[in-house]
Amino acid sequence: MWTFDAPPIEYWRKTYGFAPDQRWLDHVRLSAIRIPGCSASFVSANGLVLTNHHCARGCTDAVSPKDSNYIETGFAAANLADEKKCADMWADQLISIEAVTDRVRSAVTGATPAEQTRQRAAAIDRIETECKQTTGLNCQVVSLYQGGIYSLYRYKRYTDLRLVMAPEEQIAAFGGDPDNFTYPRYDLDMTLLRVYDNNAPFHPTDYLRWSANGAAEGEPIFLVGNPGSTGRLNTLAQMDYLRDIGYPAQLGFYKRALANYHEMISHDPSAARRFQNQVFGIENSQKAVGGYLAGLIDSARMAKKRDFESEFRARINNDPALRAQYGGTFDAVANAQRELGSFAKQARNYGFGPSVGLGGSTLMAMAAQIVRVASEATKPDSLRLVAYRGAGLENIKKGLLSERQVDPTFEKLGLTTQLRLAQQELPPDDPFVRAALGGRTPEQAADALISGTKLTDLSVRRALVEGGPAAVAASTDPLIVLARTIDPLNRRMIVRADSLNAIISANAALIGQALFATYGTALPPDATFTLRISDGVPKSYPQAGTIAPYKTTYYGLYERAAAFDYKDPFTLPQRWVARKDRLTLTTPYNFVSTNDIIGGNSGSPVINKNAEVVGLAFDGNFIGIGSRFVLNPDTDRMIAVHSAGIIEALRKMYDGARIADELQGR
Amino acid sequence: MWTFDAPPIEYWRKTYGFAPDQRWLDHVRLSAIRIPGCSASFVSANGLVLTNHHCARGCTDAVSPKDSNYIETGFAAANLADEKKCADMWADQLISIEAVTDRVRSAVTGATPAEQTRQRAAAIDRIETECKQTTGLNCQVVSLYQGGIYSLYRYKRYTDLRLVMAPEEQIAAFGGDPDNFTYPRYDLDMTLLRVYDNNAPFHPTDYLRWSANGAAEGEPIFLVGNPGSTGRLNTLAQMDYLRDIGYPAQLGFYKRALANYHEMISHDPSAARRFQNQVFGIENSQKAVGGYLAGLIDSARMAKKRDFESEFRARINNDPALRAQYGGTFDAVANAQRELGSFAKQARNYGFGPSVGLGGSTLMAMAAQIVRVASEATKPDSLRLVAYRGAGLENIKKGLLSERQVDPTFEKLGLTTQLRLAQQELPPDDPFVRAALGGRTPEQAADALISGTKLTDLSVRRALVEGGPAAVAASTDPLIVLARTIDPLNRRMIVRADSLNAIISANAALIGQALFATYGTALPPDATFTLRISDGVPKSYPQAGTIAPYKTTYYGLYERAAAFDYKDPFTLPQRWVARKDRLTLTTPYNFVSTNDIIGGNSGSPVINKNAEVVGLAFDGNFIGIGSRFVLNPDTDRMIAVHSAGIIEALRKMYDGARIADELQGR
Repeated sequence: MWTFDAPPIEYWRKTYGFAPDQRWLDHVRLSAIRIPGCSASFVSANGLVLTNHHCARGCTDAVSPKDSNYIETGFAAANLADEKKCADMWADQLISIEAVTDRVRSAVTGATPAEQTRQRAAAIDRIETECKQTTGLNCQVVSLYQGGIYSLYRYKRYTDLRLVMAPEEQIAAFGGDPDNFTYPRYDLDMTLLRVYDNNAPFHPTDYLRWSANGAAEGEPIFLVGNPGSTGRLNTLAQMDYLRDIGYPAQLGFYKRALANYHEMISHDPSAARRFQNQVFGIENSQKAVGGYLAGLIDSARMAKKRDFESEFRARINNDPALRAQYGGTFDAVANAQRELGSFAKQARNYGFGPSVGLGGSTLMAMAAQIVRVASEATKPDSLRLVAYRGAGLENIKKGLLSERQVDPTFEKLGLTTQLRLAQQELPPDDPFVRAALGGRTPEQAADALISGTKLTDLSVRRALVEGGPAAVAASTDPLIVLARTIDPLNRRMIVRADSLNAIISANAALIGQALFATYGTALPPDATFTLRISDGVPKSYPQAGTIAPYKTTYYGLYERAAAFDYKDPFTLPQRWVARKDRLTLTTPYNFVSTNDIIGGNSGSPVINKNAEVVGLAFDGNFIGIGSRFVLNPDTDRMIAVHSAGIIEALRKMYDGARIADELQGR
Repeated sequence: MWTFDAPPIEYWRKTYGFAPDQRWLDHVRLSAIRIPGCSASFVSANGLVLTNHHCARGCTDAVSPKDSNYIETGFAAANLADEKKCADMWADQLISIEAVTDRVRSAVTGATPAEQTRQRAAAIDRIETECKQTTGLNCQVVSLYQGGIYSLYRYKRYTDLRLVMAPEEQIAAFGGDPDNFTYPRYDLDMTLLRVYDNNAPFHPTDYLRWSANGAAEGEPIFLVGNPGSTGRLNTLAQMDYLRDIGYPAQLGFYKRALANYHEMISHDPSAARRFQNQVFGIENSQKAVGGYLAGLIDSARMAKKRDFESEFRARINNDPALRAQYGGTFDAVANAQRELGSFAKQARNYGFGPSVGLGGSTLMAMAAQIVRVASEATKPDSLRLVAYRGAGLENIKKGLLSERQVDPTFEKLGLTTQLRLAQQELPPDDPFVRAALGGRTPEQAADALISGTKLTDLSVRRALVEGGPAAVAASTDPLIVLARTIDPLNRRMIVRADSLNAIISANAALIGQALFATYGTALPPDATFTLRISDGVPKSYPQAGTIAPYKTTYYGLYERAAAFDYKDPFTLPQRWVARKDRLTLTTPYNFVSTNDIIGGNSGSPVINKNAEVVGLAFDGNFIGIGSRFVLNPDTDRMIAVHSAGIIEALRKMYDGARIADELQGR
């Protein structure tokens, strides 16, 4: 995941016999664009933009006619006039990158961490404002290597994007949740948009041509897009914490939340539809976090990380100058992580866990917030708990003062789950357990608390939030009474965690500096949802005792549908049933490669040495989820829609000759 | 894997609402037959026999015409006259089962284990001979529950079997070694034979009818065949030994052997063909043993086993009668296994490991045997090492006195590998290391030993074997000189291992008795390559982050071939390319079910409640290899060719309407 100002030209020359010049790099950078949460690219002289179906889902849904939905029916504009304007969509094109580390760092002169944080934020704000004023571009200072260095990214923003073509979600996400994050795959996860300028198609200076045949196995290809976030430069101690404490706790929350949703659904079939999005979201997170955890347990990956870290620490320790600056950083992080772990059970229970929307009680969480807001609001900003500083306090208040529909049965279930967890994880004489249960079972306590509260009523919440400490102190609402008792316990946990996390951040930034000082750009920074280029080759990999092929074909789509007897989520859109015989079934459909990919890269173009589109990245394979912390090129794979599969679908299924011709420059 | 004299009728009734009567059971038992190394069944009124392609490979190869080979071309007899007689093939039909535990056990009155072994063998021999004389059938006393009980199995043998139809191996074993033991699968692993009697088709009393549609997902189905060997009743201590010592050592031998073969092939491309079978064999074993080991490491499986064993041991300890008889057995096994482990490194190195054909030196192994044979031959049978008792000595002699082609380069490589292992695993002052290396590197020692030996010459070996101890003592052949030095070291290891293994067997038999006494037939005995019936349902399972479907279709065959660009082993026979459009591609091809399967079950019919063939078992899935020790129905699956897929292939690909009509009773 190389930045465009530090591409590893020599490494590419050695590995692929390919050393792109600055023109190639500029052309590719200017062809690539970033859309909200995803990546995309210009793919025609008339401003066609290629991205994933799931990246443009909001627009596809919003521009649908009243009586049907393009998510279900698919859509292909017959002509320009038929292209549908997306309301809230924009695209950012990266115009230039400038190093600003010295400007940021020289502004940080304060003695305390809090002062330093303020000075750093002010310097960044100054640089961004000045850049905006002088260039008219959108400017962002990006912190790389965990604050080790800073770069100024300047973007041109396009705001008129229109929907040109989107297949049915059924085929874009064929295989649904089971096939999500897995391979072999059979998804047409694509959407075409067009950038307009003054109500006419925009003609970009740079766009990617279409490859005639796509990439062969072993051919060098490049993924160009905006990977969101990785933790590869984290220390082992940070990873150990996630492995032993953070992720297991998170997975526990997902599991209990899903159990609660299923409990609700078992009593009320209509709940299945109501909770569908939440359930899908949690299943998705469960699969992702399960994969992160598997990566952290994977001995091959972790051996690599351990070797790297010991070598790096040895370098620091053997160099007096480095040792003086960075010698204590790893131990400082490890000690802070260890201490965070020592009270993690209390912290997550006293704080009622990540409860809202995760199967916990929304009302209980609101009660805790109301009590905390009352006292935080009386303090000067710099003395508040971290989450309540800056805009934090107002945002939390806004959340408390908006209408919220809560289901009392679900609330009782959620609170019962939380109290049961506390009962399991904490000793019986723990003050939280005594206060919350007071000798009752979790069910009895939750029933009494939820039945007795009036916090469902917005005016009651408003009176408490606006009434401040006095109103809170006077309240007899059972949830507020409990939250008042718990608050001092919870506050101690938060203060302790805030200060340990500050130690971790400060030392992580120092480690980032040390990494950059030691390895330079030979070691790319962690992903930051900014433009990167990653190299690789289409390649099969070992899976489930055999080999997963480097590509799939349209035969496989019909195989997987038939193998599951066309049951959801393996149903085929009507069009794909009726027009099957038009397809050349051996056409490559999806493919995998060794290119490094992570969330945010969705919609990235995959290009060959001629900067031609050979694919459209949309996912990674299951074991590759573990690449969040350590990449294993033997097993981790990017998954893309094949360029030939896109053309075949456009021409044979969507009457899209107009669009296919434009892509192919005909 | 239930025996036919103890089917779990009540369990089936509860689980499937199906309680077959004795007629159903007799019909199924008599329809099933056993062929060498495999299972099979009668599937027509005219004696058609269905089994796997790999089970009849020898016959298919042998009956091929001079100028071509049915393994490559496939074969379907146009009429009865065209059916080809297999030279060395027979089929055994299980006529009856009789319990003979008391007869065997009452014959064992001796005081020493050796005497008991002799008495037991004599009693079994008596029962088998008497049975053969009175019934004219082939009789075999089967030891179940590790010698806990004994049953007499009577078989009718059929010896005239003819080849009716065999597809190309390319399609029978499509996917080759990579897809072996895995799923989703696309193999037409079938062959049809016919039993003849007096040169006319035999009309069996019982045969299985063909199912019209095959089995639906979730429908109860039964696998009827001869599972070869499982270790589920082994104690945890036995499994721990295999996990920590036995299997890792075995995998080490495979790995080094493959490296040696590849080394040979890298210098001499013709070696690839020459060593093809050995390499395939080792890869197959590597995959199997790797799977066994994975099963023993699998925490879910082993937790089940641990729970069972502690519950069983608690039952024994809490019952004074059981405790008196069986109380010490588990500890005795554990102690013996632990002691075996304590000298495993010496034992495998002094004995030159499982070297022959596994990348070791054949000449070194022969030298060691010549030295050992000389001294063992001078002793009475009962005082010999175990492997030299009975027919052992003569068989070993015969091996030494047969022509053997050895490749000196390969021999040096093999001996170098063995000596290098000894150098790595044993301390430098180990007497073996000192004698074998004498200060030389493994390469130097192997080079000198192999260059200097005359054991390649059969007459030299004969002179030594026939010359006895004096000839061996006088030999100056460097391999014999080394073997003479090593022999006393190795002998101590063998004697020690023999006596510990005797302790393990004796206690395992007691544990088997205790298991049978405690759980009866509710706990089926370990597999013994005798007829069993196992129940299950077609069912998908979780794999590689998603779901593996319960069935595949012909679409998938063409997908997998295309996805690998038709590269070996994913090529298609010409017939399957030319006639593709004849096929209904949605026809079910292979399917998986929860039926318990293990090697030996190959060729077993899979039947529904009406005793109709719904499939032909040929393999298990990858994770299911771990079922050798503990079955996990959540993940372990049998793989079968679907009955509909067989008919489709016969009719559309092999001009086999004659055969398909016969199967379908038309």
